[in-house]
Amino acid sequence: MIDNLKWRYATKRMNGQKVPSEKVEKILDAIQLAPTSLGLQPFTVIVVTDPELRAKMSPAIYNQPQINEGSQVLVFAAWTELSKENIEKYISHIASLRGIPVESLDGMKNMIYGSVAGKTPEQILNWNSRQAYIALGFGLYEAANEQVDATPMEGFDADALDAVLGLKEKGLHSTVILTLGYRDAGNDRLSSASKVRREKAELFIRY
Amino acid sequence: MIDNLKWRYATKRMNGQKVPSEKVEKILDAIQLAPTSLGLQPFTVIVVTDPELRAKMSPAIYNQPQINEGSQVLVFAAWTELSKENIEKYISHIASLRGIPVESLDGMKNMIYGSVAGKTPEQILNWNSRQAYIALGFGLYEAANEQVDATPMEGFDADALDAVLGLKEKGLHSTVILTLGYRDAGNDRLSSASKVRREKAELFIRY
Repeated sequence: MIDNLKWRYATKRMNGQKVPSEKVEKILDAIQLAPTSLGLQPFTVIVVTDPELRAKMSPAIYNQPQINEGSQVLVFAAWTELSKENIEKYISHIASLRGIPVESLDGMKNMIYGSVAGKTPEQILNWNSRQAYIALGFGLYEAANEQVDATPMEGFDADALDAVLGLKEKGLHSTVILTLGYRDAGNDRLSSASKVRREKAELFIRY
Repeated sequence: MIDNLKWRYATKRMNGQKVPSEKVEKILDAIQLAPTSLGLQPFTVIVVTDPELRAKMSPAIYNQPQINEGSQVLVFAAWTELSKENIEKYISHIASLRGIPVESLDGMKNMIYGSVAGKTPEQILNWNSRQAYIALGFGLYEAANEQVDATPMEGFDADALDAVLGLKEKGLHSTVILTLGYRDAGNDRLSSASKVRREKAELFIRY
């Protein structure tokens, strides 16, 4: 609902209150349901509730207070490659869910191989990262619906964060963070600031 | 709402029915309200309702039928640079909306310049494109809420589409498309297919 989107803002200070697990699950459901290119969902989301681990992650995120004051820190980690194994697993998953022979998806499989083949590792990582941003959008929207505060964060040292979470060994690279929690309105001067957005007349060109 | 996200799918065939303008505006409101890095909203969305222009765009989008069968085609076009002029305009906009002196935002302005300075043009375009993908997510979510079908599309010739829409001269590059309309269930075999998503146990790593 649009009113929820007006209510939300990038919360800088949170009050330590826990987000109920049923709300967290709805936000994760939305992330799971986000569409992605070719349906590949080429990312993994690290959901950190444990305060000790969040404290360890904090320096890599320049000690921004939400990391410890929030309830969950979600790290969207893009796959660093699109391996043959992952593509075959995906194709088998479709065949099994839809009750069709896996061979009937050969055309799709070859199309995916073709999309991957021409790309450099950097292009693959960028492509995968963009898909994670769609899911980030879904998570942000769902959090607003649940009246849970959520802060999208790009300001962190991705390699340092990968090291803390052991992501490199898993073929993952941290791309963007979504912190969940509740605003500490008294300490966050942005909580009462007017929302700044480009006017629709400028953001959209209509034909 | 999660049920709406289960209802939606990447519609391949649409039935030509128009989306009421109040629904289109809500979808555009959601896109406008999407958060972006540093609040810059570094993209412009070309909203094409005109059937003749859609027909002209169609070859650049490999003649996928939704382009003509849909009601609106939204082209998310990332800014190709983050110019000094655009950053200053943004800072002035914040100052004016919040009723504060523009000089009080010098720290923020310098921080933005700093974020831009170290990046190559390709990195800037990638960064800007990722922000557009958050807004794409908001548009997709809002369309589902309005029971409007929406197809996110990456399969197009971006340079050819830029040429049709005159985007290069405007400092824009087409990045991703969102087509709005209504499903033609009889002609779209995917309309009744099970939704394929990675299991939550696999998509999420929890600590």
